[in-house]
Amino acid sequence: MVVKIGFGKLGNIGSAPLLEFLLDERAERKDIEVRVLGSGAKMGVEQATDVAQKLVELKPDLAVVTSPNATLPGPKRLREILTKANVPTIVISDGPAKKAVPEFEKLGVGYLIVEADAMIGARREFLDPAEMSLFNADLLKVLTVTGVFNVLWREIDKAVQAIQRGKTLTLPKVVIDKNKAIESSGLSNPYARAKALAAHEVARRVVDLTVEGCFILKDREHYTLLVAAAHEMMREAARLADEVREMDKAEDVVVRTPHYDDGAILYKRKLLEKLEKTGEA
Amino acid sequence: MVVKIGFGKLGNIGSAPLLEFLLDERAERKDIEVRVLGSGAKMGVEQATDVAQKLVELKPDLAVVTSPNATLPGPKRLREILTKANVPTIVISDGPAKKAVPEFEKLGVGYLIVEADAMIGARREFLDPAEMSLFNADLLKVLTVTGVFNVLWREIDKAVQAIQRGKTLTLPKVVIDKNKAIESSGLSNPYARAKALAAHEVARRVVDLTVEGCFILKDREHYTLLVAAAHEMMREAARLADEVREMDKAEDVVVRTPHYDDGAILYKRKLLEKLEKTGEA
Amino acid sequence: MVVKIGFGKLGNIGSAPLLEFLLDERAERKDIEVRVLGSGAKMGVEQATDVAQKLVELKPDLAVVTSPNATLPGPKRLREILTKANVPTIVISDGPAKKAVPEFEKLGVGYLIVEADAMIGARREFLDPAEMSLFNADLLKVLTVTGVFNVLWREIDKAVQAIQRGKTLTLPKVVIDKNKAIESSGLSNPYARAKALAAHEVARRVVDLTVEGCFILKDREHYTLLVAAAHEMMREAARLADEVREMDKAEDVVVRTPHYDDGAILYKRKLLEKLEKTGEA
Amino acid sequence: MVVKIGFGKLGNIGSAPLLEFLLDERAERKDIEVRVLGSGAKMGVEQATDVAQKLVELKPDLAVVTSPNATLPGPKRLREILTKANVPTIVISDGPAKKAVPEFEKLGVGYLIVEADAMIGARREFLDPAEMSLFNADLLKVLTVTGVFNVLWREIDKAVQAIQRGKTLTLPKVVIDKNKAIESSGLSNPYARAKALAAHEVARRVVDLTVEGCFILKDREHYTLLVAAAHEMMREAARLADEVREMDKAEDVVVRTPHYDDGAILYKRKLLEKLEKTGEA
Amino acid sequence: MVVKIGFGKLGNIGSAPLLEFLLDERAERKDIEVRVLGSGAKMGVEQATDVAQKLVELKPDLAVVTSPNATLPGPKRLREILTKANVPTIVISDGPAKKAVPEFEKLGVGYLIVEADAMIGARREFLDPAEMSLFNADLLKVLTVTGVFNVLWREIDKAVQAIQRGKTLTLPKVVIDKNKAIESSGLSNPYARAKALAAHEVARRVVDLTVEGCFILKDREHYTLLVAAAHEMMREAARLADEVREMDKAEDVVVRTPHYDDGAILYKRKLLEKLEKTGEA
Amino acid sequence: MVVKIGFGKLGNIGSAPLLEFLLDERAERKDIEVRVLGSGAKMGVEQATDVAQKLVELKPDLAVVTSPNATLPGPKRLREILTKANVPTIVISDGPAKKAVPEFEKLGVGYLIVEADAMIGARREFLDPAEMSLFNADLLKVLTVTGVFNVLWREIDKAVQAIQRGKTLTLPKVVIDKNKAIESSGLSNPYARAKALAAHEVARRVVDLTVEGCFILKDREHYTLLVAAAHEMMREAARLADEVREMDKAEDVVVRTPHYDDGAILYKRKLLEKLEKTGEA
Repeated sequence: MVVKIGFGKLGNIGSAPLLEFLLDERAERKDIEVRVLGSGAKMGVEQATDVAQKLVELKPDLAVVTSPNATLPGPKRLREILTKANVPTIVISDGPAKKAVPEFEKLGVGYLIVEADAMIGARREFLDPAEMSLFNADLLKVLTVTGVFNVLWREIDKAVQAIQRGKTLTLPKVVIDKNKAIESSGLSNPYARAKALAAHEVARRVVDLTVEGCFILKDREHYTLLVAAAHEMMREAARLADEVREMDKAEDVVVRTPHYDDGAILYKRKLLEKLEKTGEA
Repeated sequence: MVVKIGFGKLGNIGSAPLLEFLLDERAERKDIEVRVLGSGAKMGVEQATDVAQKLVELKPDLAVVTSPNATLPGPKRLREILTKANVPTIVISDGPAKKAVPEFEKLGVGYLIVEADAMIGARREFLDPAEMSLFNADLLKVLTVTGVFNVLWREIDKAVQAIQRGKTLTLPKVVIDKNKAIESSGLSNPYARAKALAAHEVARRVVDLTVEGCFILKDREHYTLLVAAAHEMMREAARLADEVREMDKAEDVVVRTPHYDDGAILYKRKLLEKLEKTGEA
Repeated sequence: MVVKIGFGKLGNIGSAPLLEFLLDERAERKDIEVRVLGSGAKMGVEQATDVAQKLVELKPDLAVVTSPNATLPGPKRLREILTKANVPTIVISDGPAKKAVPEFEKLGVGYLIVEADAMIGARREFLDPAEMSLFNADLLKVLTVTGVFNVLWREIDKAVQAIQRGKTLTLPKVVIDKNKAIESSGLSNPYARAKALAAHEVARRVVDLTVEGCFILKDREHYTLLVAAAHEMMREAARLADEVREMDKAEDVVVRTPHYDDGAILYKRKLLEKLEKTGEA
Repeated sequence: MVVKIGFGKLGNIGSAPLLEFLLDERAERKDIEVRVLGSGAKMGVEQATDVAQKLVELKPDLAVVTSPNATLPGPKRLREILTKANVPTIVISDGPAKKAVPEFEKLGVGYLIVEADAMIGARREFLDPAEMSLFNADLLKVLTVTGVFNVLWREIDKAVQAIQRGKTLTLPKVVIDKNKAIESSGLSNPYARAKALAAHEVARRVVDLTVEGCFILKDREHYTLLVAAAHEMMREAARLADEVREMDKAEDVVVRTPHYDDGAILYKRKLLEKLEKTGEA
Repeated sequence: MVVKIGFGKLGNIGSAPLLEFLLDERAERKDIEVRVLGSGAKMGVEQATDVAQKLVELKPDLAVVTSPNATLPGPKRLREILTKANVPTIVISDGPAKKAVPEFEKLGVGYLIVEADAMIGARREFLDPAEMSLFNADLLKVLTVTGVFNVLWREIDKAVQAIQRGKTLTLPKVVIDKNKAIESSGLSNPYARAKALAAHEVARRVVDLTVEGCFILKDREHYTLLVAAAHEMMREAARLADEVREMDKAEDVVVRTPHYDDGAILYKRKLLEKLEKTGEA
Repeated sequence: MVVKIGFGKLGNIGSAPLLEFLLDERAERKDIEVRVLGSGAKMGVEQATDVAQKLVELKPDLAVVTSPNATLPGPKRLREILTKANVPTIVISDGPAKKAVPEFEKLGVGYLIVEADAMIGARREFLDPAEMSLFNADLLKVLTVTGVFNVLWREIDKAVQAIQRGKTLTLPKVVIDKNKAIESSGLSNPYARAKALAAHEVARRVVDLTVEGCFILKDREHYTLLVAAAHEMMREAARLADEVREMDKAEDVVVRTPHYDDGAILYKRKLLEKLEKTGEA
């Protein structure tokens, strides 16, 4: 059976742009069929409704929806329409989404809340296309190396597998904090793990500065400096993440877990050894 | 008038994941409405047909379609359906798309061919979700700092503006090579420009190794090493791009060109100065 | 008039070890006479009483006392004895001291609370003499470059000057947060300021991890990793601080404010230019 | 028995600011009681006499005195008063102290002479509070990683232990040169040892430039450049020291030797393993 | 028997300046006698003729001749004179020499063609003595670490040994491409090998930019930027090579293969272990 | 008039391998004709005699001879034969050559003694072809950036010019110490100059370790570590030199002084500006 996954993307968070490719990094999986529907930067109720309806029309076996701050009306509408149509739905969102957990539970949607997926410094005086792209590139490094992305794709894979095998579908309910991330990172050297933890926490704290810079400060020079500082923090977190990856390379212990054609997760640690099948996914 | 842009994404290239956000980095533009339709990693004719039909149903004023190697049957079908439905279409693709230029001309689609958007090292023994994500993060840095992304969003903005103002729509026909990229980079220090050129060329040459590693070599150890080397090249290119950005920061000459609510492009160079309106877009 | 300053040091914080030398970096000041009394790592009531009594015996014109967490009984006793003996006293302490501000106000002591002076990762499995020293070295870099130390010595200098000139002595009441620090840093390039802000905030957040690692977690492996992560954060903050200093060097704009023999603060920005007298201190 | 240690500090050297904390890095030792008496930057005979008398009044079981250039009259007076009062005394000083060794022997004081503890670039046009602090931060890194600090605290610990156990007290007589330092560094990788040696020697040679810059050259621009160069050398030495520490982390072989509550030295190499008791100290 | 080797150097390539020292790095070999004859930067027929005649007069057992682009008339003349005089000759040259291979075969000269030995950016507006030297320093790092130099000296050593032992002399016929280089590099960590491959390929591609910059572009600003970019690429390649060497140091696995007095090649991997004799050379 | 320069090279020092190319970096000078005669690594009297005689046969207008330690019998013989034949001769050698200055004066040879051209770590357990090459690459960077090479080629150029113009030939008599080097470096930022000074001094001190490691220590492990440390020092010096160059690039103030076809020295500072003729050489 081929599982049809519908991705609904409202606005952008660091976890969203490569999400569907995390499931099928080499375009070889025969067990899933993917469609993505997005509304670009806007995430109002109007956009959400449209995206949701088109997702429902797809009749997906599973919907995965991403947005910043899932408590906002747009993302809320999106998941309401999906659940009303009985589409099993996983919400992926950033830190503020933690406030919506009771509502998620009530609706019966799964959730993967990514604490390190910090809000960008969205001030016009600072954020232009280039700055936006570089922030996302840094954030991608952090989310990858600290293990966050491993949690995301593995939880979706688990749901896919349950659907495929006709098992009861238990949707994930995970707040991906520093501990959850690092235990999924595959890092073996404890100093690499400590550095990954540090990178995670630096990234997570970026939001303190972007919130202050975007919503609290009124003086142009002041908020511009602060959101710039926030992006410098993310750059540092990315640099640390890169250093962690290099530590693993230096000992030839980079864990690799590619997907096989049937969706199985393969595994190896030494670059030139053969892949093994794991029991997973 | 609000211009409706439909993005159609088949498979992944480095230019694709943040493309719609390059147009509206802070979600403030009132002059465009965006929808994205994607098929995930797969880019066969079946997926392409489905994506194309849904795009046509959206009745967009402009379609922007992305895929690796636009000469493949999937991407070809996508643009045929769009042009048949009279949707003005811009194809964004990587180096191999240059062979399709005569066909683009014939179909009347615009094209933006990104030479530095090199193919990933898609060997199962090497490429897993983490490696895929890190390669894309590195590539994003290169495409941003070397000016490639500036060409992409400015060309789309130009088309949007023409539609908005009811002017004749001239779709872009650009191969973004090292010269085109760097002249759009906004970099002022000539050593920064030289380093950006170097980063661009290192990134562009990645594809020589990934093609050899993915399609020519048969020995597992040999091709694994080669695609790993390709990703190391991209990491170096990204490191150099990062260094270039830091050079600009060191002199407080980072060009910032955010979009205003009405789609106008603002401009400044010193971080704490005010933005100016430019005549553009 | 030579002002006699008595430093009382209980335990260690990053602001303490070089404090007296910040006032007289080349041992040329003729307007102050300094004595330091410390109790080493221990900061109990017994040690505090002893240090306080000996400080009182010195009959200093000004006392400057340092300790971690000034709400603890030892530091409390220290300042009570000093104020009882009518010694004008400035308390320098770290973040938790903010809770003691009302008490400081009541006692009439001045205070300089250093938010970035984060608690060390004091777990036996992790902290040995070498790790302690390296953490302090990193912290020194952060406190210096982000401007924190400039606040400390300038505020003490102001008090010294008031005493010298027979003016009413107004003791400082300052919580040195990111804004206070950076505005005292002398950094001119806004990106350098943004990076300094980032370094400050990364350093400040170290305490979240050391508190969790030292007081909350019980599992050895878990808390060891966490305090190690905290020190990695401080190392990153120091690396960023170093980068900031290098940015200033790259443009030959490092502010230098040495003390003249009479305690006056001199000033220059270009390395090879002459010093100017400022009106200050 | 609790051993009372009196630290007497005249002026500053890199070995001094954290010295007492090297003995009790987590404030848990129950076998020692520490008092510190210092005179700040000045180290004249007057200050020395005062510090010495107050140290004698403390009736310490052991005195540890630090100063630059122990051949100067101030430091000389300090140790004379201490030895006259029969206080067992260890002198810690920098390279020029080697000339005083015969006098140390005659007086019966122990000595720990730190060759790498190079004189700061004490020129008013260059050295301000920030530069002073950064130099010390760099020097701390060098003295820690190259093993110098391990020699210092272990030799003091040995003396403490002898006093505690009522054994004959043999005071240390050690010139800590590159060999002595590195053999105490705990570094295992020979390249890490070679780099530590290099860092030590670069730091040691700093004094050649600071002496020329402070005492020989008369031209302002010339001496300013030279002392600036000296600090750049120390920064390089610190960078190399940091690199050495990272090499050890990369293989998870950082030696940790924390003090137990009773002053015993514990030991481990892998971050997450348990500490072992060693027979030492 | 002492083998007399005559080196003839016309112009400069990266493989040339240290070539004779690669054979006898500590000046201890008793089995060879070396003479070098060079014409400096010029490599015309006149210079070549003179160098060749003097080389012939030396009556060497083996001639090794270096030049850029061995298809030029000068280098051609050089090898013709040598072969006419029956001197066994090995040509070492850069990429363009591949076109001369048929002629080499016909003449019976051996050849070692170094693909990564890229042409310098020889534009007057850019290349001065300092830039020339720095480019060569970077290139030396690349050629050393990626294994190219190992091929060069081993092939010459093999020829020397054959002559010494009176064996039939088979001159080398090797194009040193990325595979040949890396397999001779002695690197063990596969990520180090991948990085070395990347460094090799970045260096090899430098020539694309220098050729365009030197021979195709006419606009001063344009070609200056391009040759500057080419040198930035080489600097990156060198940085990567340096990183590779450091990876080997970090694991204490740097292969060392010094020559013994009799020309035998010794071997070890751990820095502090003893050398072993190998059967080679 | 074309000036014929004969280079005689015995053994290797860092100043030698690229020396002739420093005079004619793009092979365009029409005013000089160059021949190089070398003996490879060996520098005995026999080799020196042979090289000298062949140099004399060339009838050069000027001889430039390089060797380590010019006090050794080989180099001594070389210059004696040259002076006996009335060939104006400039000796280029390293630090130990300072002892031969009186003899140089007596013979009437010019000299350029390069203090930073430190002896390599010539221990068989350490120095193999790769290590030799990397040390030289690092040394080249230091000698280039700190200004040493500028002194070398300018002094030779001056002699060439004097010969060309039929002026009295005054041979150079220069010990290139840190001051001489840096004042010739063309560096403008004072921090860049300070860093260059630091790099020079670190490089200069390398010889202290290589001498101890090669001639004094007998224990294999001990001397191996020490010469390894010496090379780490040189690597640091090179890294610092590279940093200095990058500082200059960051402000677009890299001095470029290429030779014109007639030997004139051109000049510019901004990368994209035109070259100016200087009055020099």
